[in-house]
Amino acid sequence: MTVQKTSAELYEQYKAKMQQIADVRNAMAVLGWDQETYLPEKGAAFRGQQLTTLSSLAHELFSQEDLGNLLRELHGRHDLTAIQKRNVTLSLEDYEKNRKYPAAFVAELSNATNTAYHAWIRARKEKNYAVFEPALEKMVALKQQEAAILGFTGHPYDALLNEYEKGADVAMLDAIFSSVRSSLLPLLQKIALQDVPERKFLSRHYPKDQQWEFGLGLLKDMGYDFKAGRQDVSEHPFTTSFNPQDVRVTTRIDEQDLGNMTWSCIHEGGHALYEQGLPIEEYGLPCGEAASLGIHESQSRLWENNVGRSLTFWQHHYGKLQGLFRSNLLAVPIQDFYRAINLVQPSLIRTEADELTYHFHVMIRYEIEKELIAGNLKTSDLRDVWNKYYEDFLQVKVPDDMHGILQDIHWSHGSFGYFPTYSLGSFYAAQLFASAKKQIPNLENDIASGVYDTLLHWLRENIHRHGRFWTSNELCEKVTGEKLDFRYFLEYASEKFGGIYKL
Amino acid sequence: MTVQKTSAELYEQYKAKMQQIADVRNAMAVLGWDQETYLPEKGAAFRGQQLTTLSSLAHELFSQEDLGNLLRELHGRHDLTAIQKRNVTLSLEDYEKNRKYPAAFVAELSNATNTAYHAWIRARKEKNYAVFEPALEKMVALKQQEAAILGFTGHPYDALLNEYEKGADVAMLDAIFSSVRSSLLPLLQKIALQDVPERKFLSRHYPKDQQWEFGLGLLKDMGYDFKAGRQDVSEHPFTTSFNPQDVRVTTRIDEQDLGNMTWSCIHEGGHALYEQGLPIEEYGLPCGEAASLGIHESQSRLWENNVGRSLTFWQHHYGKLQGLFRSNLLAVPIQDFYRAINLVQPSLIRTEADELTYHFHVMIRYEIEKELIAGNLKTSDLRDVWNKYYEDFLQVKVPDDMHGILQDIHWSHGSFGYFPTYSLGSFYAAQLFASAKKQIPNLENDIASGVYDTLLHWLRENIHRHGRFWTSNELCEKVTGEKLDFRYFLEYASEKFGGIYKL
Repeated sequence: MTVQKTSAELYEQYKAKMQQIADVRNAMAVLGWDQETYLPEKGAAFRGQQLTTLSSLAHELFSQEDLGNLLRELHGRHDLTAIQKRNVTLSLEDYEKNRKYPAAFVAELSNATNTAYHAWIRARKEKNYAVFEPALEKMVALKQQEAAILGFTGHPYDALLNEYEKGADVAMLDAIFSSVRSSLLPLLQKIALQDVPERKFLSRHYPKDQQWEFGLGLLKDMGYDFKAGRQDVSEHPFTTSFNPQDVRVTTRIDEQDLGNMTWSCIHEGGHALYEQGLPIEEYGLPCGEAASLGIHESQSRLWENNVGRSLTFWQHHYGKLQGLFRSNLLAVPIQDFYRAINLVQPSLIRTEADELTYHFHVMIRYEIEKELIAGNLKTSDLRDVWNKYYEDFLQVKVPDDMHGILQDIHWSHGSFGYFPTYSLGSFYAAQLFASAKKQIPNLENDIASGVYDTLLHWLRENIHRHGRFWTSNELCEKVTGEKLDFRYFLEYASEKFGGIYKL
Repeated sequence: MTVQKTSAELYEQYKAKMQQIADVRNAMAVLGWDQETYLPEKGAAFRGQQLTTLSSLAHELFSQEDLGNLLRELHGRHDLTAIQKRNVTLSLEDYEKNRKYPAAFVAELSNATNTAYHAWIRARKEKNYAVFEPALEKMVALKQQEAAILGFTGHPYDALLNEYEKGADVAMLDAIFSSVRSSLLPLLQKIALQDVPERKFLSRHYPKDQQWEFGLGLLKDMGYDFKAGRQDVSEHPFTTSFNPQDVRVTTRIDEQDLGNMTWSCIHEGGHALYEQGLPIEEYGLPCGEAASLGIHESQSRLWENNVGRSLTFWQHHYGKLQGLFRSNLLAVPIQDFYRAINLVQPSLIRTEADELTYHFHVMIRYEIEKELIAGNLKTSDLRDVWNKYYEDFLQVKVPDDMHGILQDIHWSHGSFGYFPTYSLGSFYAAQLFASAKKQIPNLENDIASGVYDTLLHWLRENIHRHGRFWTSNELCEKVTGEKLDFRYFLEYASEKFGGIYKL
């Protein structure tokens, strides 16, 4: 006699299996964190092999027949809570997608990623794209294969986009970037006619230790829990999470550039607050994960730009900053500081770009990725294409590959389809922040006093605690009453930069 | 038609499977390293769960039927090289032992270890053994179960001893510790009649940063490869290896005690040189592992004591040390320094004990473990038993649990049977170093000049490169011409301390 298991029993089985897989993936995240912070030089080869092994194991565990049966059984049950139902639905979707990947492909991709990452590091050392190109060519071929494995109806790139931002596609992004061009280019042209604000004082000597302390202080003020995380130094700042109780950020410090560390701290802090705010009881389950990369980026961008580059924010922090770097800043009034940190000027490096030209950096990558995946562009031509786009859209000449095509880590990680989420993140951030200002009484006053509890509470309630329960657009609609609308970013940008440049 | 596979093909399959398991175990080692160096406070719970998951996975992978079949098939082949044959024999032994462990027991042990480790941390904070005792009681029960699972013919403790030192048993250790008592106690009594050398200057203020730099310098001089490793700080110094290209050490620094950092660096450096010298082409296979814990400890002890506490060693380093800590050491002649760092005096803490009383610390733990596993002793009585042993053998009164039963991490890790390898390590070290002195021309001169290439080369050739090919006693016999003989330690100790104390 077979006794049918209760939904509660089946759900516990499902949860245990998912947590086991999460443990393996989070172990990979620890190895990845170590790789970019403390790994000794010679340790790289075996680390790659270890990551490949764990990646294969996680893939196998998530491909097991009995997990599929369990998910299908649970999916037919009608006595699950809403969250349970959502978890099961999403896990089943993820499972079916994962099953499409042959194990050999997963291992090959993991190996190729490791090779490409180290080739990228070497290429940067030698400032020569040609060192990276063969590994990138291989990566693009694998990503084309991946798009075919996942399947698509429109553009093959849609398949990859969906990995990072469910629902995003080429049609939607072509429309958004068309708005970017039609509305931001005129704004940039007006700004280009104005005087360039003084900003030399931001490039004076800012000693490492004081910068480090100031950055830690900002994270603490924002509400980042240092008992559930830590900050270290890496070549490229990033946030990684092993669970909501261990969310780590990294930064980099340039003694000739105060901004580099400052906004990387606030930016990664925004990501980290999201991860620390995910529901811990949903560990390993979809509702314990972030909604999408675009929403993730909305959290970092909201803190970095809407909060961290506002005059209001610096009304509280500027005095402290002046005190730390007296000879550099004591003679600089806050208004000049504010204008300097919001200088709009076409430039070469995405991560150092201002809030407006930033989206042209993203658009260039978007256009390149789209054509690479479609097979309309070869990696051997990429340096030229890259450099030409920078001249066409930003009127800047790329002097070398370090300041051009080698600047971002993403392609070495195989992350094609990721860049557009950066722009989506800013646009979501503008729309969310507009709602926050409406819904939180005295938010501006709080920020002016260095109090962020109210904002963080609002983000936790409206966004963080929901995990993947809603898709990005559903979430946006629930919180702001509307689907994503570029208008909010344009209004924010016009008001802010119109004020700064007296347009 | 079944085509029989060649031995070479089967061996490659075996190697791939073993390397996969090694990757999981080494990932655990990375998570373990992180746990004791950089883990934020709240991250501990999930880290424990992640380690449990990986431990279960490694156990499952190493229990698979097809691995067993492969090993048995390979074991019957006659066309393997000597190293291949040895690998297969040892893996088959390990496999059959591992198969004895039920998966549920492995998971329970891993959970209990995590609980015990954190209970031990808390108990130390509260300086109260009672906080640790329930977790320890559970651990002892599991270790008794483990002894039964593994099986034994003589004493149940033999089963656990064999996990760390193949061939060691209660009969052998009872005999050795009886020699320790009969020959070292009279030597200690003679020393007790002599004047106590001055050593206050070792407890002056030694600033952290200079100590750190001095320690790194020692490791570098010894030949530790910093491109294949790194040093960090942890509560209890340790060495961990993820592969021979990534072998990490930790140290601790006490600004009131120069010796703490100095000899922990040299000690862990000795362990690390062994791990960095294991054959990289044997990664994941038995011959890529250390021969035994006793041999491992012989490497750390040889560097720490036979080299690092010798007058010859300091003839090279003392000038630099004086230069770093001028106000503390400039007026202290090298002879006084040498006498001070070799002061023999019964004390409370094993890791800070001198070379002679050290073995009484080990003996106390050995006696306790033996009786705990035999069920003749309860954890609830342990504090009293511990304190009484310290009075009986070392004539010291234990003032609190931190300086008593809570001082070592081992029991919280479930490492019963580990302590005796510390004494075996010293005794192997003395015998090996006596051979090294005979076989290496001008070894003393080299050491006096700060040149360690010849010694390291000798260790690499005679010990490191062999991995687990020989058992500890076989290795000892091959290198020194004799099985382990306590006489070498006694001769070394009598000569050294006879000289220092003018006996």
